[in-house]
Amino acid sequence: MSTADDLRPGERAIDTDPPGDAALRFIGRIETPWARREDCPRQGRLDGPECRVVLDPAWHDALEGLEAYDRIELLYWLDRSRRDLVRQSPKNDGRTVGTFALRSPVRPNPIGTSIVHLERIEGGTLVVRGLDCLDGTPLIDVKPDRCAFTPLAPAKPGEDTAP
Amino acid sequence: MSTADDLRPGERAIDTDPPGDAALRFIGRIETPWARREDCPRQGRLDGPECRVVLDPAWHDALEGLEAYDRIELLYWLDRSRRDLVRQSPKNDGRTVGTFALRSPVRPNPIGTSIVHLERIEGGTLVVRGLDCLDGTPLIDVKPDRCAFTPLAPAKPGEDTAP
Repeated sequence: MSTADDLRPGERAIDTDPPGDAALRFIGRIETPWARREDCPRQGRLDGPECRVVLDPAWHDALEGLEAYDRIELLYWLDRSRRDLVRQSPKNDGRTVGTFALRSPVRPNPIGTSIVHLERIEGGTLVVRGLDCLDGTPLIDVKPDRCAFTPLAPAKPGEDTAP
Repeated sequence: MSTADDLRPGERAIDTDPPGDAALRFIGRIETPWARREDCPRQGRLDGPECRVVLDPAWHDALEGLEAYDRIELLYWLDRSRRDLVRQSPKNDGRTVGTFALRSPVRPNPIGTSIVHLERIEGGTLVVRGLDCLDGTPLIDVKPDRCAFTPLAPAKPGEDTAP
């Protein structure tokens, strides 16, 4: 993986203005066993180690009802990733591929998404399996997995009930 | 769905500081058939209408290699959603559920995620099916679907090759 001052052969960065189109609010932190980027698995596994998703107290009440779901989607901010690479060389062999054809943390908006298994909820903390991010990663969002979720609101005209 | 000046019975909003923990850069716009929120389907369907994901020119080269994937993940910014609701009442019947137990656009960081079918790529535009967002929605990210993607980088110690 490339760092701010290190481009691999063939990789291409672009000059951009500082980002400022919208602002995020971190809503908690994720605790994982991995303190260094080189220790993180490349992709999380649902039989991986337990990790803890610690919500800020203001948002604890927003977890009400989440216990009904086995699988949930987490969004988090990959805060140590550069954001200016258009082409990357995952194998560092001179061959490159476009940033959007990779799930690398290096991307214009370094947001990680994972589907994880929700083991249990302990107050304002979710205990999950399936993550691959660094210890201390800022949390952005928690949602039911789209496959398990059926909208609670009434259907709209033209929608059938089994999408 | 609640708007900025309209709380349904039982819903709860919180006071928060303006968000400022991280900044997003929009990388394009999404063109859909839906101009009003009440026209959007509640969840996208892979057999839904074609939509166009128009990348800014600076990022066109970052699409290289994406054509290998049938299913891709899109992240986008739900720019007309309030961000302060902890509990919501989807049916407007006095019963509420926590924001994180819903896939409502109303959430502290209103980021939508969809898995869509990639029909074709036309220059810097992706033609896809499966979206449910408003016409003009700002694009944040494009990734291969995690289920279809195998990391290109070499495995790390302890990882087997078929995660």
